[in-house]
Amino acid sequence: MKIAVDAMGGDNAPQVVVEGIEKARDQWTDLEFLLYGDEDKIKKYLKNNDRIKIIHTTEEILGTDEPVKAIRTKKNSSMVLAAKAVKNKEADALFSLGNTGALLASGIFVVGRIKQVDRPALMPTLPVVNSALGVNMLDVGANAEAKPAYLQQWAVMGSIYARDVKKIKNPRIALLNNGTEEDKGDSTHKEAYKLLENTEEINFIGNIESNNILSGDADVIVTDGFTGNAALKAIEGTATTLLTQMKHSLMDNGIFTKMGAAIVAPSLRGLKDMFDTSKSGGAVLLGLKSPVIKAHGAANSETVFYTVKQIYDMLLNDTVNKANKYFEQMSKD
Amino acid sequence: MKIAVDAMGGDNAPQVVVEGIEKARDQWTDLEFLLYGDEDKIKKYLKNNDRIKIIHTTEEILGTDEPVKAIRTKKNSSMVLAAKAVKNKEADALFSLGNTGALLASGIFVVGRIKQVDRPALMPTLPVVNSALGVNMLDVGANAEAKPAYLQQWAVMGSIYARDVKKIKNPRIALLNNGTEEDKGDSTHKEAYKLLENTEEINFIGNIESNNILSGDADVIVTDGFTGNAALKAIEGTATTLLTQMKHSLMDNGIFTKMGAAIVAPSLRGLKDMFDTSKSGGAVLLGLKSPVIKAHGAANSETVFYTVKQIYDMLLNDTVNKANKYFEQMSKD
Repeated sequence: MKIAVDAMGGDNAPQVVVEGIEKARDQWTDLEFLLYGDEDKIKKYLKNNDRIKIIHTTEEILGTDEPVKAIRTKKNSSMVLAAKAVKNKEADALFSLGNTGALLASGIFVVGRIKQVDRPALMPTLPVVNSALGVNMLDVGANAEAKPAYLQQWAVMGSIYARDVKKIKNPRIALLNNGTEEDKGDSTHKEAYKLLENTEEINFIGNIESNNILSGDADVIVTDGFTGNAALKAIEGTATTLLTQMKHSLMDNGIFTKMGAAIVAPSLRGLKDMFDTSKSGGAVLLGLKSPVIKAHGAANSETVFYTVKQIYDMLLNDTVNKANKYFEQMSKD
Repeated sequence: MKIAVDAMGGDNAPQVVVEGIEKARDQWTDLEFLLYGDEDKIKKYLKNNDRIKIIHTTEEILGTDEPVKAIRTKKNSSMVLAAKAVKNKEADALFSLGNTGALLASGIFVVGRIKQVDRPALMPTLPVVNSALGVNMLDVGANAEAKPAYLQQWAVMGSIYARDVKKIKNPRIALLNNGTEEDKGDSTHKEAYKLLENTEEINFIGNIESNNILSGDADVIVTDGFTGNAALKAIEGTATTLLTQMKHSLMDNGIFTKMGAAIVAPSLRGLKDMFDTSKSGGAVLLGLKSPVIKAHGAANSETVFYTVKQIYDMLLNDTVNKANKYFEQMSKD
């Protein structure tokens, strides 16, 4: 099993990438890596090149680049060349910490779609209050428009993923909607509800409202990319705002409060840990011929390690092909 | 100026309603109130009936009632009779702490729409980090489906409201979207962007992403009701989850942490205050012939008081008719 890695993406590249990859290489002896990036910079951090091959690249896609334009004009960038390796079957999966939009575009236009899936979906793992497994939500923004049939396909892929990678026997699949009753929503979501209800492959538990995303009531939440994007960013924004304000409340209210803050700090750090899903790896672009995974630009080497674990689980379980086969079978029936 | 009040809606009705209304009556001498509800229960809390008339009702719409069915079958409920008083011009505005869906239905089917507005929108005030004025967001769920023209109408009404009630000279209007660039979004939001850009009445500042709703970058955020509902509930759910977890972190980690918690408690209460928008009043249903306002079911008498202030400002400024006139003019041009 070979993973093509864009070593230049992310805020701390290539250092955290190289460190995480080496740790993963030492852990799983049947994994090989193709590292795309600046050879000198990579070598600066690389301890040994067992099962790691560096492919020197000079171009780099930046976080500020316009995605589709970037992959068209920077054909020799580390990201695009890594994607091409997957397309040409020189590698089995694509991994990057770089520009999300550009990785989506690389996945769709270079790696390519599963024939039976209309649109790939982006699926991160979000924290929940009662389980370290978190909740997977898709689509959170690969698509601005959605049809009910897309949501059905995403539900099936999310369910297979939760079984294969998160080892959940019978994943609970919920539909993000504006109420819990089955007749809720706009026409897209009403129709999606009916499709999901009649999809035998999945354990559909009904609608979920976005105030319950973090509640742990579902294992996989299906949503159109526009609403999913809004809900995800609202969660991130609120968490950031509250934690920042909490810090101000503790640090800017005099020496006495500061002393109290020092006492409670270790316990409050647990709060931050609750919102840490780094062990779940990165966000998966589902619906492509091979696993394409995006880790956060600010990810550390530990997250890189766990993202490799996540890719390893997907390859070991042939997760992508299972979905493929299911959809082929469905289209025949 | 006369306000029709559903005295039986909300968790602590009619007590908090009566207390808040009396305080408001004492404050603004040109206000009169029609209180719809159980006369005995209301009288138990009413200190004096200056400018307050009780209309005895025996039916009540519960929080669990199906909205449209409730207003059709409970025609003598406090909410429906209060709405009818507004329809019949016996009162100038409708105020309730009760069932949101039923109040929406009462507003739309009993009070009635402004002719030029296609769909009324529900607009709460959300907190922001840098101003007690908060941010208004509409629609957050009166409509599951939206057309670009609706969003334009909501932007105009939100802008007039922000000027009249929040005294903001040139309110900044933003469109909730999945990116900040002007070409972002699904077809509805792309088209809405163009309409907003060309609406001279408003100060359109472009797209805003939902991680910035609480940032204070906009005064009014326009969104379709499905996405707005998801974003609002995601914010509420995340805030509740984080504050609950914070409490656990402080209280369930031994006596030493608890002591520290006691020290920082006053400062952390400030955090809760930041998320307190009770002085902004309730959520307004805009697009109707008269102001219709919903305060939170758990609201206290102070919130009731401030919601009356909010209604008073709308009546004083003739906010509803300003929007009406603008749309009439627009339709002639």
